[in-house]
Amino acid sequence: PRLYHICMAPISVSTCHIPWDDLFALMLLIPSLPCSPANFLEEEGNRGLVAAVFGILFSSLCVLVLDTDPLPLITHSSQSTRGKYWKILALLYYPAFYYPLMACATVRHKASYLMGCLLSWCHCVVHIWQKVDCPQSPKIYRYYSTLSYIPIILCLVLLSLWYPALLIKSFTGQKETLDKEVTQIYGVTWIPLKLILSITTAMIAVYQVALLLLVAVIPTIQIIRAGMTKDIVVLLVQFGLVPSESPAVPGDMEKELRTVKYYLWSLEVCYICSLVLCCLLTCTMLLRTLVMHRSNLKALYQGAVLDVFYKAHILRPSRQAIVCWMSFASFQTAFACLGLLIQQVIFFICSVGFAGGFCCLEWCLMLGAFLLASSLPPRPFWLTLVVAVIVQNLAAHYQFLEQHPLRKELTNRRALYIATYLLFPINVLVGVLAGLWRMLISGLYNSIHFCQLDISLLNRGVETFDPGYHTYCHYLKIEVSQSHPVMKAFCLLLLQLARPEGPSGLRASNVEEGIQLMQHKQAPLSRARFKQSRARWWLAYTLLHNPSLTACRKTALCDPTANGTQLSTPEP
Amino acid sequence: PRLYHICMAPISVSTCHIPWDDLFALMLLIPSLPCSPANFLEEEGNRGLVAAVFGILFSSLCVLVLDTDPLPLITHSSQSTRGKYWKILALLYYPAFYYPLMACATVRHKASYLMGCLLSWCHCVVHIWQKVDCPQSPKIYRYYSTLSYIPIILCLVLLSLWYPALLIKSFTGQKETLDKEVTQIYGVTWIPLKLILSITTAMIAVYQVALLLLVAVIPTIQIIRAGMTKDIVVLLVQFGLVPSESPAVPGDMEKELRTVKYYLWSLEVCYICSLVLCCLLTCTMLLRTLVMHRSNLKALYQGAVLDVFYKAHILRPSRQAIVCWMSFASFQTAFACLGLLIQQVIFFICSVGFAGGFCCLEWCLMLGAFLLASSLPPRPFWLTLVVAVIVQNLAAHYQFLEQHPLRKELTNRRALYIATYLLFPINVLVGVLAGLWRMLISGLYNSIHFCQLDISLLNRGVETFDPGYHTYCHYLKIEVSQSHPVMKAFCLLLLQLARPEGPSGLRASNVEEGIQLMQHKQAPLSRARFKQSRARWWLAYTLLHNPSLTACRKTALCDPTANGTQLSTPEP
Repeated sequence: PRLYHICMAPISVSTCHIPWDDLFALMLLIPSLPCSPANFLEEEGNRGLVAAVFGILFSSLCVLVLDTDPLPLITHSSQSTRGKYWKILALLYYPAFYYPLMACATVRHKASYLMGCLLSWCHCVVHIWQKVDCPQSPKIYRYYSTLSYIPIILCLVLLSLWYPALLIKSFTGQKETLDKEVTQIYGVTWIPLKLILSITTAMIAVYQVALLLLVAVIPTIQIIRAGMTKDIVVLLVQFGLVPSESPAVPGDMEKELRTVKYYLWSLEVCYICSLVLCCLLTCTMLLRTLVMHRSNLKALYQGAVLDVFYKAHILRPSRQAIVCWMSFASFQTAFACLGLLIQQVIFFICSVGFAGGFCCLEWCLMLGAFLLASSLPPRPFWLTLVVAVIVQNLAAHYQFLEQHPLRKELTNRRALYIATYLLFPINVLVGVLAGLWRMLISGLYNSIHFCQLDISLLNRGVETFDPGYHTYCHYLKIEVSQSHPVMKAFCLLLLQLARPEGPSGLRASNVEEGIQLMQHKQAPLSRARFKQSRARWWLAYTLLHNPSLTACRKTALCDPTANGTQLSTPEP
Repeated sequence: PRLYHICMAPISVSTCHIPWDDLFALMLLIPSLPCSPANFLEEEGNRGLVAAVFGILFSSLCVLVLDTDPLPLITHSSQSTRGKYWKILALLYYPAFYYPLMACATVRHKASYLMGCLLSWCHCVVHIWQKVDCPQSPKIYRYYSTLSYIPIILCLVLLSLWYPALLIKSFTGQKETLDKEVTQIYGVTWIPLKLILSITTAMIAVYQVALLLLVAVIPTIQIIRAGMTKDIVVLLVQFGLVPSESPAVPGDMEKELRTVKYYLWSLEVCYICSLVLCCLLTCTMLLRTLVMHRSNLKALYQGAVLDVFYKAHILRPSRQAIVCWMSFASFQTAFACLGLLIQQVIFFICSVGFAGGFCCLEWCLMLGAFLLASSLPPRPFWLTLVVAVIVQNLAAHYQFLEQHPLRKELTNRRALYIATYLLFPINVLVGVLAGLWRMLISGLYNSIHFCQLDISLLNRGVETFDPGYHTYCHYLKIEVSQSHPVMKAFCLLLLQLARPEGPSGLRASNVEEGIQLMQHKQAPLSRARFKQSRARWWLAYTLLHNPSLTACRKTALCDPTANGTQLSTPEP
């Protein structure tokens, strides 16, 4: 790997048109990079390619965090006194190292595509060769290093297929037409690039964390299971951890040894099952983010700010919004990692408890009988609570509610008041159960939705105190303000006028169709005397559909009644 | 106490006009009670009196839960085979036992007030005499029983002052005028009775739980502290729990003994401090519930359903709403208990950790040095994260944001994209910290607001899955649909016509003032040709202020354009 980095790093830097002097000159990369062509986070870029590079970057970060040699150019850096500085430097080194893989696609020139082909093939071959040559490593688990490199290799394979395809396209003269872009903007499958990036890295994060959780625990349990002897079983029986009928004699522990091995096996199964469940849940939530985001964007484009935010927002860039936009993908990735960890802890405990009921029947029956007999209140108590709740529901339906055909009305008030008073102590006990349920459901809900940034874990009024939701809200502001379909359609029309070589008839129809999605119907203002009333009606109608406009109405418009008709008024 | 119950129970039952045969006939109380006068949960009742009786009831429940003899009429009931059934029966016995204290006030007759005086004095004297005569009991802590009876005695004292006042008022002829009721409805201090009840019982719940938490732990710690000997200190030193410079010789442990006693004392202080903090927080949240509830009611009376609920609701009674209304006060009380418990656990752990930094300096320095040296990442790492965040903020402000006088715009896009890419790995690490903060803040927020039913602990979209918030929403529906000020003012006007003996001029003015709060200004429809445009404008304006009406518009009105003017249209 050291040779690979020594060869590739100068190439990486030379692609960025920067003189290569020393390793420390890497720091110079950062101010010089803006000179190179890099509109890679614009919508018209090659989405899959950019997502693949971000995936490689995140996987490298995962390798870096656990690695003892963060910078491959310097061996045994962790043993030196400056080890921790190398690790921090590596955080900036890897983005610069993989940057050319992305930059080559944005230049839109045959030579750059060729360069991209060579680079991606080179990276890919080196990585695959390295892992085939030496698949085992002493770290955590012998195949961990190989398994954790799989996302990097897959992303590199994607790149080494993508670049040749781009090169062939550029030779055959197939250009990305404006039509395609219009379709991208208005198609059903349209999702902003930044979100695709964040979901890709979050999915890779789920893989990496799940892999780490798996290889850190399962081999250890298997080793313990294989190495379990009768002597240890005797100890466990003496401590009362394993039920035993016979006296604790080492020679006579066959059955108990089998029981212990069975326990360990079921622990292993529980761990894997809960991990699979967590991964599935996290991935489902991430996909749900995509759906939510699409509907949020649609609502904001139509001006329905209150459908998305609890309070009216003005959708324009700000310092905070830019910072949040920059860190959105990173936060999504980090939250996916943490969410998976929290879920695994909760679900593993739950699954062990649940499996305990089925697997370790003897042990649990003993415990269960003890619990039922001592701490839990007796069964008539539960029965009373259930009966009280049913009685209240029946009484409410048949006694306290008068069912008119049009509307229901309260009746028998005295009986209602007396029932309320008499059932007060029982309802307090029901309330304690409801409180426990409240605690459980809020904990479970928050742990499952932890990876979703588009949901606040706090209450409506204070939801922006949640750092995840705060980031998402500001990210949305930038996305909406910078990529409104009407604005894009307008820009495309301008581009079309500047480049009249294509088949303009087809394009124009598509663009028109796109614009019609956002267009509003202008009512004919036939008679002058209806003018003011109509203007007021339009204004009210507009404000009904765009409540966010009320905030900036007085400042933006001098005479609201006269200018009311000029506001955009989307049809329902 | 047995004699007291034997004497008082027949009196209680006789007040309810029911033949008294046997103890088991108590069950007969429930179907017969609706015959007795009992509109005590109506607004015009004596609020303080009703709240006091509910307070007595809840305190009795607290005593009952921990008591071994739940039914005072049957001694040693817990030792009998039917002990658990007695406890369940006691849940119904106590409400019936204290019922006459409330019923006497609702009859509104001199004889009933006199009866109320005698009953409350009797109860009060018996309880005070009982506790003065025998203040100590062997349960939990010797003064626990006495302290837990304080709310009962205070409430009884309130009742024994309230009834004579009512009696004197009835003799001097002072009646509650309609004016007062109108003032009650429209005054600033107006809060529904059910909420006053729930807050009173919740406050008593806070007292009872705090008392229990205090007497169950503090005397034990004090006993341990007093009984700490050098032999135990030697053991603690050998286990490494107490730092010691000298070798573990029992004779030479003066300093270590002092340290251990100091630790125990600081544990005690932490416990009391966190308990005080929890009580203050819970009480603040309960008071905040009152404020929130007032503003919610006001908003709902004005038709602004979406200011209170996330989705449009139709405010009419239903089975669920009645059940929730019945159990609202009980749930509020139970949630206050649970919330205090959860907070105490969290804050005690936090305060011990916090105090550890100050009190047990030696021990913590050792631990802290170990932690800093081994597990925590090195300081340059934190510095990098902080610098990265600051750099992003500065760059966003000075580089990526073009500050026009009217609106801000995004600029230097290339640099922005490159910075986003390069800072991706560092932002992932910042994201991990943000995720930890998200976890912490949501846990803390939910534990502090656990006792508030008017706040959902779940996200906006699924907030009604929270049993507490679900109960509150349905409770609000009943409150609003049954006690709208306009309806009340109308009923009062009808009552005024039926009872013309009072000074009607004063009353009418007050009622008018009350109605004006809700009145709308009718616009003059001067010219017929403007009619339709104006009607549409009114309709749009109305719907803008009452979004909930859109749901039932088509069904309720045949022709929306023609009837638009007849809807209530409050002025902004």
